[in-house]
Amino acid sequence: MPSSSPSPALLMPQVLLEATLQRGADAEPLQRQLHRRLQEAILAGRLAPGSRLPGSRALAEGLGVSRNTVIAAYEQLSAEGYLRPDRQGTRVAALARPAAATARARTGDEEALSPGQPALAQGLAQRLAQIQPTGAGTRFGLPLRPGVPALSHFPLAAWRRALDRAITEAGPGALAYGEPLGEPALRAAVARHLSVARGVRCSPEQVVITEGAQEALSLCARLLSNPGDRAWVENPGYRGAKAALRAADLTLHPLPVDREGLCATAQDWALHPPRLVYVTPSHQYPTGAVLSASRRLQLMEDARRHGCWLIEDDYDSEFRHTGESIGAMQGLLPQAPVLYVGTFSKTLFPSLRLGFLVLPEALLPRLQGPLGELLRGGQRHSQLALAQFMENGEFARHLGRMRRLYRSRQSALRQALQQHLAVPHQIEGGQCGLHLCVRFGSAWPDQALAEQAHRHGMAPSALSGFALPPGPADNGLVLGYGNTPSELFAPLVQRLSGLMQAL
Amino acid sequence: MPSSSPSPALLMPQVLLEATLQRGADAEPLQRQLHRRLQEAILAGRLAPGSRLPGSRALAEGLGVSRNTVIAAYEQLSAEGYLRPDRQGTRVAALARPAAATARARTGDEEALSPGQPALAQGLAQRLAQIQPTGAGTRFGLPLRPGVPALSHFPLAAWRRALDRAITEAGPGALAYGEPLGEPALRAAVARHLSVARGVRCSPEQVVITEGAQEALSLCARLLSNPGDRAWVENPGYRGAKAALRAADLTLHPLPVDREGLCATAQDWALHPPRLVYVTPSHQYPTGAVLSASRRLQLMEDARRHGCWLIEDDYDSEFRHTGESIGAMQGLLPQAPVLYVGTFSKTLFPSLRLGFLVLPEALLPRLQGPLGELLRGGQRHSQLALAQFMENGEFARHLGRMRRLYRSRQSALRQALQQHLAVPHQIEGGQCGLHLCVRFGSAWPDQALAEQAHRHGMAPSALSGFALPPGPADNGLVLGYGNTPSELFAPLVQRLSGLMQAL
Repeated sequence: MPSSSPSPALLMPQVLLEATLQRGADAEPLQRQLHRRLQEAILAGRLAPGSRLPGSRALAEGLGVSRNTVIAAYEQLSAEGYLRPDRQGTRVAALARPAAATARARTGDEEALSPGQPALAQGLAQRLAQIQPTGAGTRFGLPLRPGVPALSHFPLAAWRRALDRAITEAGPGALAYGEPLGEPALRAAVARHLSVARGVRCSPEQVVITEGAQEALSLCARLLSNPGDRAWVENPGYRGAKAALRAADLTLHPLPVDREGLCATAQDWALHPPRLVYVTPSHQYPTGAVLSASRRLQLMEDARRHGCWLIEDDYDSEFRHTGESIGAMQGLLPQAPVLYVGTFSKTLFPSLRLGFLVLPEALLPRLQGPLGELLRGGQRHSQLALAQFMENGEFARHLGRMRRLYRSRQSALRQALQQHLAVPHQIEGGQCGLHLCVRFGSAWPDQALAEQAHRHGMAPSALSGFALPPGPADNGLVLGYGNTPSELFAPLVQRLSGLMQAL
Repeated sequence: MPSSSPSPALLMPQVLLEATLQRGADAEPLQRQLHRRLQEAILAGRLAPGSRLPGSRALAEGLGVSRNTVIAAYEQLSAEGYLRPDRQGTRVAALARPAAATARARTGDEEALSPGQPALAQGLAQRLAQIQPTGAGTRFGLPLRPGVPALSHFPLAAWRRALDRAITEAGPGALAYGEPLGEPALRAAVARHLSVARGVRCSPEQVVITEGAQEALSLCARLLSNPGDRAWVENPGYRGAKAALRAADLTLHPLPVDREGLCATAQDWALHPPRLVYVTPSHQYPTGAVLSASRRLQLMEDARRHGCWLIEDDYDSEFRHTGESIGAMQGLLPQAPVLYVGTFSKTLFPSLRLGFLVLPEALLPRLQGPLGELLRGGQRHSQLALAQFMENGEFARHLGRMRRLYRSRQSALRQALQQHLAVPHQIEGGQCGLHLCVRFGSAWPDQALAEQAHRHGMAPSALSGFALPPGPADNGLVLGYGNTPSELFAPLVQRLSGLMQAL
């Protein structure tokens, strides 16, 4: 090879005259330019493997740069393996033929994913595609969007102060990785809150701080089931849970929901025994049904008998609008076979990305190892600020204010529906939370309606998007009232009603 | 049943005299106390199914509370399904038999996990247990701990200001869920930084902001492989990557590492073709080898031919100590079959929990859907503050300062090893990053040494903890110098040397 290569004198102009070095205050350092030009020439095959480069002195003179610049570029390229110094000087190293690869890669996106090229794992993409869309899009600021709390009522100034204080007080030590399961102060505050407000039985050790409820659900699925296992979900039910369970390669078995919540029959247990059951007992999502005490106890008893775990998602139960708060299922029995999941997305704000998982005490010793490998501890400053927020009463005060606000917003939405929704419909839910579920006949297909609404600046969700697969009764809208001012409901519902009549 | 139940007059004292209601300013509201006592009595079976409760007036008189308190408690229990109002008054509902379940649950932790009770998915726990320990523990503040940057040199005040400004400027809108793939401002800043500093070819659209490198690795594994697929890892190699790949149920195939980095032979490709290859080309973790240009090109070419993806983890390459920075493998070829992973844990601080993943352009259209289901957008305030930090030059200035600091710390550590480590050893790595790798004979077993060191207030990692399985050559220590002041190295290495001689 070396014998067939052109002489350095012939080589260098060819490489370097293509683009002369840039000079000036703004230019890249000469050494880096030289390094890059030579590297490109080698990769493109213009400097053939084995060909000899000019000596550093000659090249420096030819380019009008200092000899040190050339030596540094040569050394760098040698360290990277592009050049091989030998007794006679410096040669281009023998590399794999990138030219062919480059040509193939350039044929376009489709080609890059054709057979024989790297491809996606079809499994995950396909599994996730099984979940229905809701038509609500991602513009979370739009009115009627379910699941978004009253953002402009959040005490942002108090939060900024809490965060600033937490960063200052924690000092450089809190910049390091934290406990994988979360900041001890926050785990203690969450345990206290859950035991007082939700009747959850737990010690701080059982609390795992997660990146929102979504990570908590994903951990449940991955820690407590094996791929291919069956998971029961509510139908209609929360899409995020289905995504987490499907991502863990669980088979979803949808069970119907009525006014008492999830209906599981003895036949379901006998014919389709699950490994995991996802359930929203306090406020079924999206219908708003409350799982009755008798079904709660039966479910826990059956879960014990069949060796399965219940995942209780208590996503917005802090906002109870009628009567006293209904306690968590987890707290009904000691050592219930329940993993309790919650989030601060509804009580504080979604982009905080903090949620939690309460592990059954019996699982603690077995899960600490795996969790330590999977988790790296959360954003410690936010966790510490939140712990402070909970301890000094800001959190409870905010909950109280929001409960009153949401109650009045819900009543304004109900009034608007009664006065302005011109088609026959039925309102469900509303005992707690941030949304109402409205069902109507299939003459007004909900997916088309949600899309139309989106185009008109609203983001209700299509009820059928929560069903798997949607039946004729699963036609309706899920209307969020959390982030929509009361005075807007009348004009919004009028607009919705107009869209329905035009369908 | 009703006929066999005791009369209300007999029942109520039995239930309520067990613990009289608490009164006083600090006491729980009476209605909630009453609700809880009745609920407990029903769950414990002391109030039998079908038994009739006293009328609200009678009970209110008996307890000395207002009648409204009793009515509210009864209504709440009825709503929850514990009581059933009928024409004669209020009866206890028929519930599943919780007593038996309770008795079984109370037999202890072991019992709760015995056959027939819910159990862990053995798979994940067992798969993660395969990964060796390093003996370094979780006390990240200890000196010599690898992977921790100089925490007390982080410009905490500037960061607080950036965060505060970001929260104020973004206003209530940024409290909502963000783009699943990350804040556009941060994705743009990362793309610019990577293209200038690392030679990565990418547009902002290809950048996904993740919760640290660990989430990025986990996404790669889950999106690009199916359970049971084979993944190549470097041996010795990064434990976090192995945990992410094992958690996705991939089979790990360890390949040796020499002075030119990962060694993959034609035989490896023929006999054990991988679906994913995890590689640290700029600074192999933990040996510090630099993957040579020839191997980089060969690896990409082979990956294309075999339809596999390369995961390039560029975790600490910003801190180059000798010569110019070596560019990322991803940037060597257009449309390289490479997923590029990076983190801000080393450049800023670990508890920030921000990292990123650069997707190949060709995968974008296929991955946006699945990523939208799996991700909820990150902590937007931190992301916005970081974008500002990168745009206003704070980030680059901090990198420059830290590069100089780490260079001097590394040289102090080298000097201390030369002067004070009394056993024959060999130092590897150090061309960039925050750690050195020191190998020595198996007469000084590294796991025992790391444990001893931990007891003496240091946290080096045992090299064998990175091997799978460890061979006789994988004996040594990984010494972090990022978070350890230079003047400490001499006494620390003296102490280590003493521990080795005592072994």
